[in-house]
Amino acid sequence: MALLFLTSNKYKILEAKKILNKFGINFISKNSKGFEIQSDSLEKVATYCALEGFKKFKKPVFVEDSGLFINSLKGFPGVYSSYVLKTVGCEGILNLLGQKRQRDAKFICIVAFATKDEVKLFKGEVKGKISTKIEKAKGFGYDPIFIPQGYSQPFSKIIQTKFEISHRAIAFKKFAKYLLKKGVS
Amino acid sequence: MALLFLTSNKYKILEAKKILNKFGINFISKNSKGFEIQSDSLEKVATYCALEGFKKFKKPVFVEDSGLFINSLKGFPGVYSSYVLKTVGCEGILNLLGQKRQRDAKFICIVAFATKDEVKLFKGEVKGKISTKIEKAKGFGYDPIFIPQGYSQPFSKIIQTKFEISHRAIAFKKFAKYLLKKGVS
Repeated sequence: MALLFLTSNKYKILEAKKILNKFGINFISKNSKGFEIQSDSLEKVATYCALEGFKKFKKPVFVEDSGLFINSLKGFPGVYSSYVLKTVGCEGILNLLGQKRQRDAKFICIVAFATKDEVKLFKGEVKGKISTKIEKAKGFGYDPIFIPQGYSQPFSKIIQTKFEISHRAIAFKKFAKYLLKKGVS
Repeated sequence: MALLFLTSNKYKILEAKKILNKFGINFISKNSKGFEIQSDSLEKVATYCALEGFKKFKKPVFVEDSGLFINSLKGFPGVYSSYVLKTVGCEGILNLLGQKRQRDAKFICIVAFATKDEVKLFKGEVKGKISTKIEKAKGFGYDPIFIPQGYSQPFSKIIQTKFEISHRAIAFKKFAKYLLKKGVS
């Protein structure tokens, strides 16, 4: 039975494929527009969207929601990362941090998988810091300003590495292992 | 029948009283915690909270939701004004604007009033601009950095004027007139 990935982001489809195909898991994708809500937690957003998707399409649905949490900005932009990106963008984040030396941050990804029996959640987290300039190359979102722990360049400059170590990669690996254990592929 | 104002903000209670009492309308207030949702519009947030409040307390309930919309930041912080205030604050807004000369902004307030028959919405809007420094005195929220059109000082420095001309005052005046017309007081 084909799994369904609800998302409106082509980069998320690419990143999910990089992981899931490696485990022999295929999926189809549909636009998540109309299924999304705002909420105060990634878990609630992903769970709601997955449940609504299952209700509509009557097949196993997975959804992911991610956020960038910056320590010295009290977790901002957090669950509103997507909205903040569309308005003030990476440049806005750099302006907010200014010359601050404390630039620790983390990316969190929650994958929610809804079937007729339950919703399972899989979490991925990657620690890092916010750069002092925008290093655009590839990737999307905050990739140009997020430098993962142990590296000296942002995700946008090490996109192949990002596919392996990102919050999204970690969450999707957990999800893939769960599916294999359950015998779904 | 006593009207019920659901809010968790004592300043909002004060500002509502300033207007409604002038029209001879009294109300009691209860904490809105547990009734709030996040959404992509002030209207949805206020409507949902008012409906939930009516369902729980079985009496006419009003709720208000407000946001600051800054033109050159594509409407940021908008419906997330409260979250942005708690994280990056007024200082964050000034950092985002930097030396930008285009500092136009507006405050919007939506009052939602739920009865057994319907939900009525009342909108108040005030145009202005964002100051270049934080002028704390009185008020709350973004009052220290919002200078209303036609004035040279921010709301926080002209709090008596704010009670008269703010987005919240305008919305509550419309609400008061509606109530008087309906014979509710």
